[in-house]
Amino acid sequence: MIRKVAVIMGSDSDWPVVKGACAQLKALDIPFEAHILSAHRTPAEAAEFAKNARANGFGVILCAAGMAAHLAGAFAANTTLPVIGIPMKGGAMDGLDALLATVQMPSGIPVATVALNGAKNAAWLAAEILALGDEALAAKLDAERAAMARQIAAKEEKLQKEIEEL
Amino acid sequence: MIRKVAVIMGSDSDWPVVKGACAQLKALDIPFEAHILSAHRTPAEAAEFAKNARANGFGVILCAAGMAAHLAGAFAANTTLPVIGIPMKGGAMDGLDALLATVQMPSGIPVATVALNGAKNAAWLAAEILALGDEALAAKLDAERAAMARQIAAKEEKLQKEIEEL
Amino acid sequence: MIRKVAVIMGSDSDWPVVKGACAQLKALDIPFEAHILSAHRTPAEAAEFAKNARANGFGVILCAAGMAAHLAGAFAANTTLPVIGIPMKGGAMDGLDALLATVQMPSGIPVATVALNGAKNAAWLAAEILALGDEALAAKLDAERAAMARQIAAKEEKLQKEIEEL
Amino acid sequence: MIRKVAVIMGSDSDWPVVKGACAQLKALDIPFEAHILSAHRTPAEAAEFAKNARANGFGVILCAAGMAAHLAGAFAANTTLPVIGIPMKGGAMDGLDALLATVQMPSGIPVATVALNGAKNAAWLAAEILALGDEALAAKLDAERAAMARQIAAKEEKLQKEIEEL
Amino acid sequence: MIRKVAVIMGSDSDWPVVKGACAQLKALDIPFEAHILSAHRTPAEAAEFAKNARANGFGVILCAAGMAAHLAGAFAANTTLPVIGIPMKGGAMDGLDALLATVQMPSGIPVATVALNGAKNAAWLAAEILALGDEALAAKLDAERAAMARQIAAKEEKLQKEIEEL
Amino acid sequence: MIRKVAVIMGSDSDWPVVKGACAQLKALDIPFEAHILSAHRTPAEAAEFAKNARANGFGVILCAAGMAAHLAGAFAANTTLPVIGIPMKGGAMDGLDALLATVQMPSGIPVATVALNGAKNAAWLAAEILALGDEALAAKLDAERAAMARQIAAKEEKLQKEIEEL
Amino acid sequence: MIRKVAVIMGSDSDWPVVKGACAQLKALDIPFEAHILSAHRTPAEAAEFAKNARANGFGVILCAAGMAAHLAGAFAANTTLPVIGIPMKGGAMDGLDALLATVQMPSGIPVATVALNGAKNAAWLAAEILALGDEALAAKLDAERAAMARQIAAKEEKLQKEIEEL
Amino acid sequence: MIRKVAVIMGSDSDWPVVKGACAQLKALDIPFEAHILSAHRTPAEAAEFAKNARANGFGVILCAAGMAAHLAGAFAANTTLPVIGIPMKGGAMDGLDALLATVQMPSGIPVATVALNGAKNAAWLAAEILALGDEALAAKLDAERAAMARQIAAKEEKLQKEIEEL
Repeated sequence: MIRKVAVIMGSDSDWPVVKGACAQLKALDIPFEAHILSAHRTPAEAAEFAKNARANGFGVILCAAGMAAHLAGAFAANTTLPVIGIPMKGGAMDGLDALLATVQMPSGIPVATVALNGAKNAAWLAAEILALGDEALAAKLDAERAAMARQIAAKEEKLQKEIEEL
Repeated sequence: MIRKVAVIMGSDSDWPVVKGACAQLKALDIPFEAHILSAHRTPAEAAEFAKNARANGFGVILCAAGMAAHLAGAFAANTTLPVIGIPMKGGAMDGLDALLATVQMPSGIPVATVALNGAKNAAWLAAEILALGDEALAAKLDAERAAMARQIAAKEEKLQKEIEEL
Repeated sequence: MIRKVAVIMGSDSDWPVVKGACAQLKALDIPFEAHILSAHRTPAEAAEFAKNARANGFGVILCAAGMAAHLAGAFAANTTLPVIGIPMKGGAMDGLDALLATVQMPSGIPVATVALNGAKNAAWLAAEILALGDEALAAKLDAERAAMARQIAAKEEKLQKEIEEL
Repeated sequence: MIRKVAVIMGSDSDWPVVKGACAQLKALDIPFEAHILSAHRTPAEAAEFAKNARANGFGVILCAAGMAAHLAGAFAANTTLPVIGIPMKGGAMDGLDALLATVQMPSGIPVATVALNGAKNAAWLAAEILALGDEALAAKLDAERAAMARQIAAKEEKLQKEIEEL
Repeated sequence: MIRKVAVIMGSDSDWPVVKGACAQLKALDIPFEAHILSAHRTPAEAAEFAKNARANGFGVILCAAGMAAHLAGAFAANTTLPVIGIPMKGGAMDGLDALLATVQMPSGIPVATVALNGAKNAAWLAAEILALGDEALAAKLDAERAAMARQIAAKEEKLQKEIEEL
Repeated sequence: MIRKVAVIMGSDSDWPVVKGACAQLKALDIPFEAHILSAHRTPAEAAEFAKNARANGFGVILCAAGMAAHLAGAFAANTTLPVIGIPMKGGAMDGLDALLATVQMPSGIPVATVALNGAKNAAWLAAEILALGDEALAAKLDAERAAMARQIAAKEEKLQKEIEEL
Repeated sequence: MIRKVAVIMGSDSDWPVVKGACAQLKALDIPFEAHILSAHRTPAEAAEFAKNARANGFGVILCAAGMAAHLAGAFAANTTLPVIGIPMKGGAMDGLDALLATVQMPSGIPVATVALNGAKNAAWLAAEILALGDEALAAKLDAERAAMARQIAAKEEKLQKEIEEL
Repeated sequence: MIRKVAVIMGSDSDWPVVKGACAQLKALDIPFEAHILSAHRTPAEAAEFAKNARANGFGVILCAAGMAAHLAGAFAANTTLPVIGIPMKGGAMDGLDALLATVQMPSGIPVATVALNGAKNAAWLAAEILALGDEALAAKLDAERAAMARQIAAKEEKLQKEIEEL
């Protein structure tokens, strides 16, 4: 049985970006739940969720947060499930604060960090992790990669037309 | 009765810097306790300490942490006592990561951030806060400021001699 | 008797952000005064205000300034009241200049720095400081925190509906 | 059967840091291979390794590289196994270049990035991923976390003695 | 016979900027081809193109990419033709990530990096390189420089009028 | 009569660098005074010095300070003499904080900023300013420039020998 | 006789900002000339202008340039008149590139750097420099400063009304 | 006949790094001259050298400079030969200032920028450019690349021994 992905965001204002992770998981037929849990406004609930995540059938946890982005770290502190951090753009230096606050974790408490606003890639990474125990999913991921290459071939054709008109 | 200051560090490796805060508090006769509590390695203990801090007689909490410095934020999430964050040097960009992770807190959960490695200043700030309810302490702080100015006058004298020898 | 909060801004162009601090103080029934005083254009008036602030019944001073943000430092140099610095966005590196100019204070002259444009949080921090001597205010702050958690629960409900429609 | 971890470094000069990943994997009894493969000096061999990694029994790939750190990206481009990137300190801005070059991957090709020089944490993250299919390993990780908390308690005791001597 | 310039972009979204390189090459009568090839989505095709570029009559390769900009490096790894990297704006720190990922190449695998979004200058640099074996092209470049100076003289005239109206 | 240069440093720890300004002024026979005055520890004395500087025969004021470098700004706020700011290395981001805090002054209160630790260049700039009213000094500056060029010629000779031995 | 100010810009696209310097000089009745001269497109003309500037009656030279802002440095290399550099916003890191390229000059060739887009302040600095030899101008500058303080008083009044309406 | 490479450094203090470029050129049997020429201390000589470089048999110009690194730009302004810029470490932000000052050139005046202290890579790039007109050199470069790959294989062997001893 495939494990669920938990998609956690620190604020509902993160939803327009985080939605991309949910859509990607759905497209790959990976079960998920999405929740708003704040490291600062609901710290007890967040800790509780993290502690019980493995027992509750989750396999990977995605955490999206901006500025002093503590959410992924707060989850990682309370579980040994893989936690993927999505630093959100905005704040001082346009997201670099969130990136550093997410990735620079101390020894023994890793957060797998993806690009700024990289919700879709976080879903991909979750899929790659779950695919280790699910050959059908692994095959699906390989097929998606082949499709990406074909899309570029299609764009190449369009480009050649634009060049002729230069 | 004056409230105690809690001096929390995320790791014992922070002690050489954090010691400066304790020494300053001691010099000002302000009662304090110092503890190692990690946002990531002992999250439950840290939350517990923060929740009970007011009832346990604390008035201000100092939190020193480096890299993805979540400690001050984790405390601020669990108390409405003033929390002072001391970002520690080191990590990517030599402490800027810790500074941003400490200061860029969301609305409603402030952390009073001081300079990188600013343990001594964090103690000063705690003293200024406690002095609002303690006139003797306020007078002591003013006297210290006057002493600082006198020290500069002394250094000025020494400088004039060095200039003569240029 | 509760002490007043002084809300100082270096320029009237800071008002749209600083207003958030005043609104927050008002919502918490904390008395305050707001003034424009510039570290560079009216340095004598700013120093005078800071020197007399304690005698004039102020307990905390909020200073908002951008770019080479000297305002909070100029106040901290002239009082031992707690000074909270609000670095304003804009300028080179979109506010990082103001953040560093506000937070990197020398030993003995601390500025309690909050996030870029963090006027509302500066008001919160002032409230936390004043609540040390005012139990009713402390209770109000705890109640506000509980309200924040309830707001997230409400947003969570709305989120679940949006997910169903993905 | 547990899958192997591949530990790839772009240069033998990365070994003193990368060694930490190997030691951690060994301590957790996770089988691994370590190799030097360069995205720029041996691009074909690197691509070949990545393409065959799943078939060759690998489950996770760790890639350590500095400066214009393309190694993890080059691996991620050629496999749908989870790839963990370890940006190495050094270069312009002391590793920020490697961090950004590792983490800012395009959609569909994620790299799970850990802290600068975070080799040990990369091993931890690999272990967390592999533990999804290995309950004994999951239990071992939880036990390690408990040990970390006990270490802090031991350090706390030592701290209290140092404070008495202040 | 003059060699062709290859203009490679990692994504069709780069075209509005990269078009400037093609237009400049066309204006200088330098033969070129433009293609979309991704270091991450079509790594094998990109490597193949680079390996055969010299034999296929190319003299210089321009590579435009953003964020974790590996494209120029991936080409440089597979050819000893001069590779010019055009880091694209966008991403964390508004292009600094792409700049560092492009320029900080290891010893023996250089990428000639131009300014952020500097597609037109990349074309100029390619022209300067090809002009070493083509005196007519060298003369054309010198003529263009003289034209630039004349344009400034024309703008100077217009400026003097604007000053009078101040 | 030539006006004096005031060389102000915020702390005696700046002297090893600031000494370079004094030595350069002495070498150019420009009268100067050097003093320690702190924007934060002796704000009233600093303001007083600045206000009276013109009347006291000063023509240019050099201010060296690090971290939240307010010194030059505090002087500029209290005089319309030209103020030259020397940002000192150290602090977060190794002096960038001091550079931004010095240079990013608001409209109407300029600080002429030189390079990090650029004490010698600050003295040069002061000399260039004073030379506007002192032709002998202007001639001396031109002679110094010619000497610089000759020094390079001498170094060039030495270089050619080193190349032969490569 | 008062010396003229030269206002040099590297490109006519700088005029909307540089105009502020000209307007300020005009308001202070300081004679000036403005020209477009590029360190890169008209290097010989720029060097010639700088070499003859003192003889041609100029006292201060303002140079505005963006990105790899070499203009002020190119002027400073060819004259011992004070050169004021105005780094222009835009480019990588939104002007920090221009700021660093302007201010980080080598020993003996200073550029007096003002804030990003600080054209008006560059004019003020030029006025302060020229006022050393012109008492009437010095008096005018002092009067302008007093006017600035009065403007703040007027804004303060308006602020008090806005606060009442909160 | 092969053209010469000019290796220009702004200061003799750059020689320990720049020497790497000369050694690499010598190893590839490419004729070169090395000179000290400063954009700021000997601007006329630098311009003269650049203007005559093509006529004097040079094919590529390497320019190494730090801080406000104008040298490559000053050369590019006076020739249409390809100019390769080597930004030197040191200065504010440890060389990022030099990198930005070198790479962010305006349209029409490109500088081919390599990594910080990338003298050896600048020589490689020069070789790649000259190899377009010299098949023997092109073959040599390809052979060097193959040698690099073999070196990695040798290091891989050594690594396997070190792993056994872990």
